[in-house]
Amino acid sequence: MDTFSTLAEFRSFMADLPEADLLAKSAATERNSLLTKPAGALGDLENLAIWYASWTGNGRPSLAAPQVVIFAGNHGVAAAGVSAFPPEVTQQMVYNFQAGGAAINQLCKAFGAKMDVIALDLERPTQDFTKAPAMSEDELLSALQTGWHAVDPAADLFVAGEMGIGNTTPAAAIAAALYGGGAQAWVGRGSGVHDAGFALKRSVVDAGLARHEAILVDPLAVLQTLGGREIAAMSGAIAAARVHRIPVLLDGFICAAAASVLHALNPKALDHTQAGHLSAEGAHAKLLGHLGKKPLLSLGLRLGEGSGGALAIGVVKGAVACLSGMATFAEAGVSDT
Amino acid sequence: MDTFSTLAEFRSFMADLPEADLLAKSAATERNSLLTKPAGALGDLENLAIWYASWTGNGRPSLAAPQVVIFAGNHGVAAAGVSAFPPEVTQQMVYNFQAGGAAINQLCKAFGAKMDVIALDLERPTQDFTKAPAMSEDELLSALQTGWHAVDPAADLFVAGEMGIGNTTPAAAIAAALYGGGAQAWVGRGSGVHDAGFALKRSVVDAGLARHEAILVDPLAVLQTLGGREIAAMSGAIAAARVHRIPVLLDGFICAAAASVLHALNPKALDHTQAGHLSAEGAHAKLLGHLGKKPLLSLGLRLGEGSGGALAIGVVKGAVACLSGMATFAEAGVSDT
Repeated sequence: MDTFSTLAEFRSFMADLPEADLLAKSAATERNSLLTKPAGALGDLENLAIWYASWTGNGRPSLAAPQVVIFAGNHGVAAAGVSAFPPEVTQQMVYNFQAGGAAINQLCKAFGAKMDVIALDLERPTQDFTKAPAMSEDELLSALQTGWHAVDPAADLFVAGEMGIGNTTPAAAIAAALYGGGAQAWVGRGSGVHDAGFALKRSVVDAGLARHEAILVDPLAVLQTLGGREIAAMSGAIAAARVHRIPVLLDGFICAAAASVLHALNPKALDHTQAGHLSAEGAHAKLLGHLGKKPLLSLGLRLGEGSGGALAIGVVKGAVACLSGMATFAEAGVSDT
Repeated sequence: MDTFSTLAEFRSFMADLPEADLLAKSAATERNSLLTKPAGALGDLENLAIWYASWTGNGRPSLAAPQVVIFAGNHGVAAAGVSAFPPEVTQQMVYNFQAGGAAINQLCKAFGAKMDVIALDLERPTQDFTKAPAMSEDELLSALQTGWHAVDPAADLFVAGEMGIGNTTPAAAIAAALYGGGAQAWVGRGSGVHDAGFALKRSVVDAGLARHEAILVDPLAVLQTLGGREIAAMSGAIAAARVHRIPVLLDGFICAAAASVLHALNPKALDHTQAGHLSAEGAHAKLLGHLGKKPLLSLGLRLGEGSGGALAIGVVKGAVACLSGMATFAEAGVSDT
């Protein structure tokens, strides 16, 4: 599917997803078994490279064109004081991304990734979900489409990043709606909110869950009602990467919440993704558990922006370089027992 | 110190080590606190970059010239069948390194590291330590010197790798001699030895410990008696990096054993090092615990060659790029609260 013009079309797409290339997977698995190393000695790098081969459709792949897109959005709930930073910082950080001054700029440079920044209607925050659905159906559709079209079909690895003051609150609300447990199970400190803000954040999430309870049985309704534009755009981008069979590295808690909506629509929806890292935001580990993902890195990052996903590009580069560049026992004249 | 010509000189050097640059450390710490991110949001990357700054002596450092050196040695104990591979594979893998076909070649290429290979008297294995000391004092001195001179003073990050069929056996013996617990606590499967070989490996280690018990109170005697040329060379290289204030990424179990000898000589000896990764070789975690090191990566590698250290170069690159390349709140016009 090239695009979609209704949520119904998006749903249909999600119900019938393209699969990995099993021929490429088997070619990569065979090649891996012949390389000059003890069987399994490259640990998780081996399955990582085989996974990458299976989605790029090449049993001896290269990784040359990673893309990071940062989606930015503003949130009605941010006005309530759920964050350590004021809402203006979303726009200020977008300027910082454009000027090359943020962490993600440096990580993209370090790992040779193309970086795009897409700000979604920053001057028009979503509705406060304790009072109304965060977005209308049209706004959800538009955000999903923005994410979808942000993916470069020529990319060979994709990372969805985000910036949105207050957005651990909608992310926690989405996780609670999909997996239960209420605010208590999913609300953390985000970028470092103080005690009063933390208590408020919990009550905001529980109020949103209570207000919209009746319609939270459908994953897209969860995204529309409790999410945000940048979160929906990440969902759309991860889905679009699937169409182009571009492997995806998930970033932290917000990204996992965006991914979890797709996973709720179809449990195979995230087969083309790996968890780039484990965030210090406590609920991230729990969310990755629900998604069945083991993180590649665990370095205590809790920044967003795609930073953990971008850092993991290096790990995938190393894995792919070994699979595709190493000599076989026969080529190198090395005894294999 | 530029060099040493006796073991006594090496001991003196180890007793009075150069320290990190505290001015650079404090400049980096100050700079880190001003960057456009919530405090602490880059997690372990922040202290990693500050550590790197403190050893390179630059509060806003770059990482442009990493060096990986692979030391290769052969072991008397290998003839007994402690490994899944025959001793000839050490030389075969050296050829593979020189031809560019091994995992470490691909990782060095992926992370822009210069790679050198140094084979230490492969045609002359160490003595079987169940029958005699593995090396003479002169052989130990020579191996330490070889490692020492292998470090390029112009490098700005150093990884010591190794190749030596059977060398998890001397590494386990060194760890047992330094920390107790006997073979049971330190012997693992290495590159994948079968059950009979595994039992033999344990008995070989315990026999070595018993035979040389009286002299195993001195760390350099441990290295001479139970170690191997490539292990001693790694010790020498890690020590030389200290002189040049080059930060070091430790690789896996063998490398940690080489480092532990230095740590036993001086508990501050490894301050210029970080553990690049946690190996799947079970005793590695325990050894890192004794050295007080938390690994940057944990991806189940158990290959040696410096592979885990080289993979971690990417993490340090990312950390350093953020510290040195990010804008401050003031520069970017971002509100910091």
